[in-house]
Amino acid sequence: MKKVTFLPLRKEIAVQPGTNLLQAAALAGVPVEGNCGGKGTCGKCRVKVLQGLHGEPSTSERKALTEAELAEGWVLACQREVVDDTVVELQLSSDAHDRKSALAGAAAKIEPEPSIEKIALKLPRPSIDDQTPDLERLLRELQRPALKVNLPLIADLPGILRQERFKITAVLSEKQLLAVEPGDTTARMFGLAFDIGTTTLMGSLMDLRSGAVVAVAAATNPQNIYGSDVISRITYAARGAENRAALQRKVIEAMNGIIRELMQKAGVAQNEIYEAVAVGNTTMSHLFMGIDPTNLAPAPFVPAFQKALEVEAAQLGLSMNPSGRVVLLPNIAGYVGSDTVAVILAAEMDRRSDNCLAVDIGTNGELVLAAKGRLLTCSTAAGPAFEGAQIRCGMRAADGAIEAVQVEDDVKLQTIGEAAPRGICGSGLIDAAAALLRAGVIEPSGRFVNPEKEGHKLPSRLKERIRRGQDGFEIVLAYAEQSATGKDVVLTQADLRELQLAKGAIYAGFKVLLRQVGITEADVDSVLLAGAFGNYISVESALSLGLLPDLPPEKITPIGNAAGDGAKMALISRSVRERAFALPERIEHVELSTRQDFQEEFINALAFPK
Amino acid sequence: MKKVTFLPLRKEIAVQPGTNLLQAAALAGVPVEGNCGGKGTCGKCRVKVLQGLHGEPSTSERKALTEAELAEGWVLACQREVVDDTVVELQLSSDAHDRKSALAGAAAKIEPEPSIEKIALKLPRPSIDDQTPDLERLLRELQRPALKVNLPLIADLPGILRQERFKITAVLSEKQLLAVEPGDTTARMFGLAFDIGTTTLMGSLMDLRSGAVVAVAAATNPQNIYGSDVISRITYAARGAENRAALQRKVIEAMNGIIRELMQKAGVAQNEIYEAVAVGNTTMSHLFMGIDPTNLAPAPFVPAFQKALEVEAAQLGLSMNPSGRVVLLPNIAGYVGSDTVAVILAAEMDRRSDNCLAVDIGTNGELVLAAKGRLLTCSTAAGPAFEGAQIRCGMRAADGAIEAVQVEDDVKLQTIGEAAPRGICGSGLIDAAAALLRAGVIEPSGRFVNPEKEGHKLPSRLKERIRRGQDGFEIVLAYAEQSATGKDVVLTQADLRELQLAKGAIYAGFKVLLRQVGITEADVDSVLLAGAFGNYISVESALSLGLLPDLPPEKITPIGNAAGDGAKMALISRSVRERAFALPERIEHVELSTRQDFQEEFINALAFPK
Repeated sequence: MKKVTFLPLRKEIAVQPGTNLLQAAALAGVPVEGNCGGKGTCGKCRVKVLQGLHGEPSTSERKALTEAELAEGWVLACQREVVDDTVVELQLSSDAHDRKSALAGAAAKIEPEPSIEKIALKLPRPSIDDQTPDLERLLRELQRPALKVNLPLIADLPGILRQERFKITAVLSEKQLLAVEPGDTTARMFGLAFDIGTTTLMGSLMDLRSGAVVAVAAATNPQNIYGSDVISRITYAARGAENRAALQRKVIEAMNGIIRELMQKAGVAQNEIYEAVAVGNTTMSHLFMGIDPTNLAPAPFVPAFQKALEVEAAQLGLSMNPSGRVVLLPNIAGYVGSDTVAVILAAEMDRRSDNCLAVDIGTNGELVLAAKGRLLTCSTAAGPAFEGAQIRCGMRAADGAIEAVQVEDDVKLQTIGEAAPRGICGSGLIDAAAALLRAGVIEPSGRFVNPEKEGHKLPSRLKERIRRGQDGFEIVLAYAEQSATGKDVVLTQADLRELQLAKGAIYAGFKVLLRQVGITEADVDSVLLAGAFGNYISVESALSLGLLPDLPPEKITPIGNAAGDGAKMALISRSVRERAFALPERIEHVELSTRQDFQEEFINALAFPK
Repeated sequence: MKKVTFLPLRKEIAVQPGTNLLQAAALAGVPVEGNCGGKGTCGKCRVKVLQGLHGEPSTSERKALTEAELAEGWVLACQREVVDDTVVELQLSSDAHDRKSALAGAAAKIEPEPSIEKIALKLPRPSIDDQTPDLERLLRELQRPALKVNLPLIADLPGILRQERFKITAVLSEKQLLAVEPGDTTARMFGLAFDIGTTTLMGSLMDLRSGAVVAVAAATNPQNIYGSDVISRITYAARGAENRAALQRKVIEAMNGIIRELMQKAGVAQNEIYEAVAVGNTTMSHLFMGIDPTNLAPAPFVPAFQKALEVEAAQLGLSMNPSGRVVLLPNIAGYVGSDTVAVILAAEMDRRSDNCLAVDIGTNGELVLAAKGRLLTCSTAAGPAFEGAQIRCGMRAADGAIEAVQVEDDVKLQTIGEAAPRGICGSGLIDAAAALLRAGVIEPSGRFVNPEKEGHKLPSRLKERIRRGQDGFEIVLAYAEQSATGKDVVLTQADLRELQLAKGAIYAGFKVLLRQVGITEADVDSVLLAGAFGNYISVESALSLGLLPDLPPEKITPIGNAAGDGAKMALISRSVRERAFALPERIEHVELSTRQDFQEEFINALAFPK
């Protein structure tokens, strides 16, 4: 048997000579990428052999690797058999390309400025002439006598100092000594950025030294068994502390699953993760921290807290260094959470001089306006239309969802994954309504034309699709024969009304914010669409429905998962985090629910533009 | 059935009319003092009836209570039967007399200046025009926006604020919001002072507002099952984290027993105790906090920490408000602990201008010298002689221990509790040696005179008592017929050698400290004897043995349990606590173990003065 050691995981396994490195990795439970089943064709199972390299590169290796890489010891794990004891280093995907793609726009420009610091030291050993106690000895050498130190760290300090004969690495946050590790561990320092969505949890593991994203993973928010929307979860939590604890446990468990996946992907140990930054809507923030969300649901929608929270990982049971810190960015109001704060960071809305509007559309539409040096937010109850709920054939953006629609002689559909149509998602709904409006199938009032009375101008195949259904007129987008469900996929008059309510609310929100600072649509220099929805929406369709301010399309830019980007920025940069902490003081939140002008704008905005 | 309510415990119980109040209290589990079994003779079961008082005072009551007290509703619980629903207030022993007796000397002069503050507030209720989150609303009204607030407090804040319609009491330490309580609870604020001895744990419950001691209790330190001295406990703890945790658990459980007793005695609820200050020797301090003490035992005797520690009660599992704070005063060195720091506080040695020497004699003798504006400490391994160990018939100061000895024609004994002699305790040992020296039974060298050769001058009854034993000569202090054990109680040549080693070490310690600041015995203005031993010792005897510096007896003062007093002072006064925190920086600790001059002084000091 020969020993194979996988770095940086330090996992060891004994295998028969002749076993290939990909098999050895699988036996050791070490994840190595690859999707050709060991045939050598995908070129993904790159590893670096530090010791025990034998033989010449295979044809596959010559194809997948450069001469320089081959010279450095890079191989394809599936192409190399174990001959001797072997030491293998796994590849961490931390190159510049990954970082750029993970942090779009402004975020990519952030210089790492971690709030965690590692200092390697060799302490003078105690003697009868220098009896300074262990803790004070350490603080003296660190020249930081006022550093806060938690009890569990002091409790085990004597053993840790003596493990490598007073050679240690101190892990520090600004004011606190987080950990003391035997030997020199300065090369390894990781953090987590979490975007806690009502539906989806997204986690990124980052190298705090380089600012690189080393792995990403996502999971469904398992709180969904208590209801898919925030109101049902608040209602459940309000029934008692037990329920609240159950909701917290669910999300923490799922986050721990994500962390396990991230650690495996990147070869990072739990104790090497010293910090996490999380963002989410205000309800998710409460539930993550186990804080009573009861008063978020009824007016006046009062959160329990607003400011950023910072707690020890151990207190939450998050799978990272137990002394590590978890930072939840501040929220703004009951329906404007730290995810919106993160959008502001990612889009640098707190530092721009133009008039900029950002919108994150989900169940609620959260709007941010930066104008005249002011920063305003509001939240509109857009309703769940864009997420497929309340829409007869509505569905989330998944395989088979109609995501784009053309209407000319007939209806032409584009579905996610090019699968047979199963339903219609948010971007498909907007696209369909815009196309139907353009084709004259629906009127600016949102009403279907009566095919018998007013349909004489419509192409016949289109006209045939319009019929009377249980909610008035409806149009068949996909007939049962073509659909994945065996039933017609339709868009109904009621669906259009839902869409009108949603887009009217968002547009009216825009208008109120603009009025609040005394500018008009024409004064807006740019509109940023945050979130997945903003990425997939057809800007032209949204403009033609009056969902967005009436501006040239080039002024409207999707910015991707800006909330997640903001969390990452706040993780790797102390100064970005400081900006986040200061935002609640600066932001003017506009409560729309009782404003007369909002009601008027809303009613005006229900119709589609002519 | 009638309802009886006991204040301030708010305990209620339903009893048959005719039940007396003492029985009702027993049924309710409410402690009321009294030791005559309800006969009305001891006069101790005083309670105040606030509601439901019927009938006239009994003869016993007229005897035990003044007219004014009777008029106020004071009764003897055993003399009053329940007629109607009754409300009873229990007596808390918080009068000025108690306070004075508990805080001796300097301590009695301390003005309460608690670090805990209670502020009653009525918050404006949230509305759609004032959506300020709960936490920020509270901090805004407190005008302390930067106050630290722990997660569990935020988690339940919404419910607490609304329980009494936004009327609350905030409990604050200097930098932290410790608790928020519904309604106005400003009248109730308690703290604990603990003296954690190797042998005995002593706790005092104090009213933080008045500075009064409201109850005291003590218990044996149950760590004694792992050894009676610090070295055996260190050795046990050093064998693994499990053992260390067991030692911590033991002391915390015993402290919780003390707290339960204190709460019952004083009618105080767990959540009303917001702070604890503890002192102990350096080993006890480590074990109380669960900190690795391994390196205290071998040279160079390095503690894990020196500075004051402050942790949440919940973290230690101490039975007080879980958000309350536990403060352990700083230690000075491996064998000079926070108990010595507390002695310095109680004797105000950090503020006096005379040359003052304090000594706390136990297994170790801890010495403090204040002179020329300097503050020095050292620790001498006095050995366990004064606590009865290593002495053939040695015992702790308990009933039957010989505590004073006169030697003239014969030996005359005084025992604790006037019981038949069982053994000899520390003060008895000193007294016996001094008396035997004076009577010529022992020589200044510590050697017994040979009764056959040199005993001709001795009275015959005395001479008869001297005999040859297994350790050379010995003297019978109490014959088997008189003793409680049925065996002779003797003092042996070996016992005297132990005493000489102990007193020699202490005296040599004095000398080194004096030399360190360049003064002589004659320059010492006062000597303070701290601890129980100091209270019971015969100063004349100690002087005649050379245990204390050669000064007039009036310069030598016992100051009682100064360590406990210092802990109480630091509990009730923030500025005293600050003084304690600053002491390690100021104190010069002198390590005697390797000093040549200590060895010389020690050898010189072994003989008794002529």
